[in-house]
Amino acid sequence: MAKIKKLLIANRGEISLRIMRTAREMGIETVAVYSEADRLSPHVKFADEAICLGPAASSESYLLGEKIIKVCKQLNVDAIHPGYGFLSENAAFAKKVTDSGLIFVGPSPEAIEVMGSKLAAKQAVSKYDIPLVPGTEEAISDIPEAKKIAKEIGYPILIKASAGGGGKGMRIVENEKEFEEQMERAISEAVSAFGDGAVFIEKYITSPRHIEIQILGDQQGNIVYLFERECSIQRRHQKVIEEAPSSVVTAEMRKAMGEAAVGVAKACNYYGAGTVEFIVDEKLNFYFLEMNTRLQVEHPVTEMITGKDLVKEQILIAEGNPISFSQEDLKINGHSIEVRVYAEDPKNNFLPDIGTLETYSRPQGPGIRVDDGFEEGMKIPIYYDPMISKLITHAETREDAINRMIRAIDDYQITGIETTLGFCKFALEHEAFRSGNFDTKFVQQYFTPEVLDPSFSDEEKEMMVALAVEFFTHAQSSLKVGESQTVKESAWRKRLD
Amino acid sequence: MAKIKKLLIANRGEISLRIMRTAREMGIETVAVYSEADRLSPHVKFADEAICLGPAASSESYLLGEKIIKVCKQLNVDAIHPGYGFLSENAAFAKKVTDSGLIFVGPSPEAIEVMGSKLAAKQAVSKYDIPLVPGTEEAISDIPEAKKIAKEIGYPILIKASAGGGGKGMRIVENEKEFEEQMERAISEAVSAFGDGAVFIEKYITSPRHIEIQILGDQQGNIVYLFERECSIQRRHQKVIEEAPSSVVTAEMRKAMGEAAVGVAKACNYYGAGTVEFIVDEKLNFYFLEMNTRLQVEHPVTEMITGKDLVKEQILIAEGNPISFSQEDLKINGHSIEVRVYAEDPKNNFLPDIGTLETYSRPQGPGIRVDDGFEEGMKIPIYYDPMISKLITHAETREDAINRMIRAIDDYQITGIETTLGFCKFALEHEAFRSGNFDTKFVQQYFTPEVLDPSFSDEEKEMMVALAVEFFTHAQSSLKVGESQTVKESAWRKRLD
Repeated sequence: MAKIKKLLIANRGEISLRIMRTAREMGIETVAVYSEADRLSPHVKFADEAICLGPAASSESYLLGEKIIKVCKQLNVDAIHPGYGFLSENAAFAKKVTDSGLIFVGPSPEAIEVMGSKLAAKQAVSKYDIPLVPGTEEAISDIPEAKKIAKEIGYPILIKASAGGGGKGMRIVENEKEFEEQMERAISEAVSAFGDGAVFIEKYITSPRHIEIQILGDQQGNIVYLFERECSIQRRHQKVIEEAPSSVVTAEMRKAMGEAAVGVAKACNYYGAGTVEFIVDEKLNFYFLEMNTRLQVEHPVTEMITGKDLVKEQILIAEGNPISFSQEDLKINGHSIEVRVYAEDPKNNFLPDIGTLETYSRPQGPGIRVDDGFEEGMKIPIYYDPMISKLITHAETREDAINRMIRAIDDYQITGIETTLGFCKFALEHEAFRSGNFDTKFVQQYFTPEVLDPSFSDEEKEMMVALAVEFFTHAQSSLKVGESQTVKESAWRKRLD
Repeated sequence: MAKIKKLLIANRGEISLRIMRTAREMGIETVAVYSEADRLSPHVKFADEAICLGPAASSESYLLGEKIIKVCKQLNVDAIHPGYGFLSENAAFAKKVTDSGLIFVGPSPEAIEVMGSKLAAKQAVSKYDIPLVPGTEEAISDIPEAKKIAKEIGYPILIKASAGGGGKGMRIVENEKEFEEQMERAISEAVSAFGDGAVFIEKYITSPRHIEIQILGDQQGNIVYLFERECSIQRRHQKVIEEAPSSVVTAEMRKAMGEAAVGVAKACNYYGAGTVEFIVDEKLNFYFLEMNTRLQVEHPVTEMITGKDLVKEQILIAEGNPISFSQEDLKINGHSIEVRVYAEDPKNNFLPDIGTLETYSRPQGPGIRVDDGFEEGMKIPIYYDPMISKLITHAETREDAINRMIRAIDDYQITGIETTLGFCKFALEHEAFRSGNFDTKFVQQYFTPEVLDPSFSDEEKEMMVALAVEFFTHAQSSLKVGESQTVKESAWRKRLD
């Protein structure tokens, strides 16, 4: 059994800090890497040692695998944690790390490779009875044959170009009547776009949910699942609110999904922490989408409901320890929600809004966790993902966790840039979210920039200003009870904002 | 069932904020009160409305019960939460609150009154088979009779003056041989000090632990216990580190203590949140000491291991709701530790060290909670308890919770005043604490100011300074890998400090 004494975190920002905190609690020394743009970042200050990799661009810093391995040799580092993004799902890097005698805190290069290819992944899991979205396994161009298959699958179905991408040659067919015409069009689009008319046919999921299962595997071959995360609230096809457990997953479905996820992990001899993503339809059928062979951004919600520190488990597994608990030991404790706070403007199509954190004050209190990598006064660099932080709440029930999150969002003070906080509050207060009845189309279905801009009439505004002036005048002239009372400025700011 | 719509918190600082956070999550409006010294406090800013009660002195502000009730009437408040300290265990205030038609978020005035008197409390619990420290129920002056009782109780025993106080007329007797002489001296001391020679005899607990049980009762008469808190680490007879569960309490003992605590609560028809304190001897016999009829400073450790929000439960009970869970529903989840961060100088007998929080940066990460009532730049007022914050960690095991706490203490940046953080770190790292084998004498037994001052030889210091200079020179001239590395300044500061 190897004991990791010094760990290099090949990442930046919140995930680098989050990994280092656990490492320090385990008595492991930490080495940070950073680009010139991140020189003053908290992850650099927190580490026992820190190494500058190069200029801001990821390709000249955080993606320099060879350089990172060289640093490890120079500083007697014995293990690398890749975090998420950057080199975390790069099989060649993982192989170089292990070939150079270092421990890679993650799965084997082979597992990364297999799961990195949709086709290879599907082939690998075929022995394990994992539900896949029904469809043709091979490309097809024969229309009557295709029509027969479409009927078997059941409408609506999706026709997509074999060589496709970017939606070209993609057609949703609602019923049999439309099939021939739509397939002809799809083939002709595919031919003109890719020079190849072959198409795939698969079931179209009208109201899809994105639900994923967290798994942990050890090098002895034990695999457990740590329940699901509901990740259907997305903008620009990327997750922005996640929760655990999901409000639609029953105990029976949880077990079935969990066991399917374990099957996927077995199919690639997986060890470490991994996430098996499923798409779930209105009837709660679930289908395997892909496996993420790394720590997930939204891993904290699983930590909150299971009490497990996933980074600690990753490190223990990388050292060669067997998982210290069984499937039966795992219990769901309460409910947890994460909102991702991005430097983005929800009123402007969620485009990045880069700038300086003029004010930055985190919410506090029971059941609240903030994972971030910035301090007040810092600039959000333009070079990387514009995530400022992850705000996580935990409470006994879903309703309590939602109410706690809304309170926490109200207490989170960020000025200088636009963020997704206001959008997240809108979503959490929305009836569809509250009821649990939503899918990945939540944003396009319910969100318009106007919902963040409650408008007041001129009359209302004048009245409020007059009231505010009155209150503040009193507040200054006298602070004694019975004569006056102070009203907090921020309440007024909120209403007038 | 009354629904509380607007709650006044008759307190200040961290506990006021902590209560308001839960109230806001429950959709209840909040009213803060404050003294002139607390005008800029976070609890004032957080509240929906805030009222100044008067000058800094508690007697002219936070203790003005009548004034507080008057404020409630003016602002249409329907309930008062007293927090801890100040008016929280004042039966007359609780009565005035309810008499004026307001809801008191706490037990009945009668329960406060009974448990406020040691004698009345002992009498009340006598029907409930609650273990008390063995001793005479009435004062005695007959030496042979006293000796007989002492023998029955078992040595060592404590002789204390009936009219006593401040240790006068108090004698520890180790064995029968010494009894007569010591009792004569105790009587003579008592006569000369109080003019009354009568004494009590009770068992002397050589190695006492302070362990308490959290209970919740509702107005329907249901009472549950939320397990124990170990509070033996004290300085100046006041708690400074608490944890849950206790490392010496077995499942069987937990049940026995829990049921005894429920008995104490029944004895005074208790409702609301309350704490039954026990003294525990080396053989793990436990004896009822007293009941605190309010929310306890250290309540967060119980929240962490049970997942219950005790303030929410208090409010629901005050509204007249029955407790929504049973004893069987309660489970211990992991381990939690709290350290109290006081503005005190451990090197100077833990005397208050009042000043300005020049730097104030809270630790972050999974399983960490900070309950505080200050911001950077604020002054700690001299008028009140000098507690700055409560730092709480939660993890799967006691060892993990300790390691997490040490990491959190290292990350907690406070400058401008001395604090108890260094002492708490010393205690958490101490073998006696780690092993769980400690009692209320921990500080006097193990702590000396020198342990916070690791001394280096002149040679060591010179070597470190030379190394530091070398590193910082390199750090400035070059930040590229392969040429140099930056070493964090704070690591050096820590070692040289």
